[in-house]
Amino acid sequence: MPGHSAPDRGRTTASERGTAPKQDRSRATRQRLLESAVTCLAERGWSGSTVTLVAEHAGVSRGAAQHHFPTREDLFTAAVEYVAEQRSAVLRDLPAPATTEAAVEMIVDLYTGPLFRAALHLWVAASNEPQLGPRVAALEARIGRETHRMALALLGADERTPGVRETVQGLLDMARGLGLANLLRDDTPRRNRVVAQWASLIADTLR
Amino acid sequence: MPGHSAPDRGRTTASERGTAPKQDRSRATRQRLLESAVTCLAERGWSGSTVTLVAEHAGVSRGAAQHHFPTREDLFTAAVEYVAEQRSAVLRDLPAPATTEAAVEMIVDLYTGPLFRAALHLWVAASNEPQLGPRVAALEARIGRETHRMALALLGADERTPGVRETVQGLLDMARGLGLANLLRDDTPRRNRVVAQWASLIADTLR
Repeated sequence: MPGHSAPDRGRTTASERGTAPKQDRSRATRQRLLESAVTCLAERGWSGSTVTLVAEHAGVSRGAAQHHFPTREDLFTAAVEYVAEQRSAVLRDLPAPATTEAAVEMIVDLYTGPLFRAALHLWVAASNEPQLGPRVAALEARIGRETHRMALALLGADERTPGVRETVQGLLDMARGLGLANLLRDDTPRRNRVVAQWASLIADTLR
Repeated sequence: MPGHSAPDRGRTTASERGTAPKQDRSRATRQRLLESAVTCLAERGWSGSTVTLVAEHAGVSRGAAQHHFPTREDLFTAAVEYVAEQRSAVLRDLPAPATTEAAVEMIVDLYTGPLFRAALHLWVAASNEPQLGPRVAALEARIGRETHRMALALLGADERTPGVRETVQGLLDMARGLGLANLLRDDTPRRNRVVAQWASLIADTLR
């Protein structure tokens, strides 16, 4: 995690000085593996995704990859969580859009890229694979809570107003459904019309 | 298909009389295979679903199964289409519910059972498998159009009113997203709250 070791930098001892670049390299390797894992999962699905393939794609030895992620389940769940966190960090720093429609567009866009495709493959595989099920369910709950907070901020919505919580939840469900509809073909023109209509339907409830 | 041969029954010739029971048996075998295929796909996903497994489950020889469905792709795409058609036929005969909320509940229920799970596994597999992609995309389009017609009828909605088409499309996207959220855990309490809120949001636009 960036920033994790930063507070210690100022008081590095002599023995630590030698290990710091090694830790940086290890962190960079880990990040490359996680990013490659999301790409691989999005493009090839769960059945086509292995640690060996991701290591090759990331230019890392299989042994190094397994040092970081002992199992296939470790690698791919960590990858979806890492990329989701990176994205939240970027979105948290943006100002809230001026209109409900612009905010709805940004929220819906979260479900049309490689991260959603990767997560979808993982969720669907988890529904049939006992070794994946409980950890993916927990991961989905964490990402879901974070996405809900992010959506409230983008919409400038206050959950204490009755109906707002369920309106935003339904909007996120709709965004997920729009992501699914975009899986086999480019669904952009239809999606834009749905977004415009629903933004106008929810604007009154939210502001 | 039931009813397909019914109009000919009254004028069966002597030579046809011997083959009719054989055709009935063949049709019954086909239906058992299709229903078993949807169950198998819903429970085991695409990677766990084979013609052999479905034949065993349906109590049909592997040879007979392959006579009806030469490839795995043939069997599972036909199965999702058949079960979707059976369901549409049932729903077409029901009267429109008295309230928008009851109609929204019925629409959302379409996405929480085995048919949705089976279809989801097929859609997601099709996004990575070239031999499955184009036929599943065409199948999804056909089922999507039929579901849209069904939703309009259940809601008593008229598409000529501006905004109605996109409102109903967004509702179906939300229903799909709610189905996805129900994949790894029972999401019923949250889903009921979202349905109540969204039904009230769309009632004015639709009626």
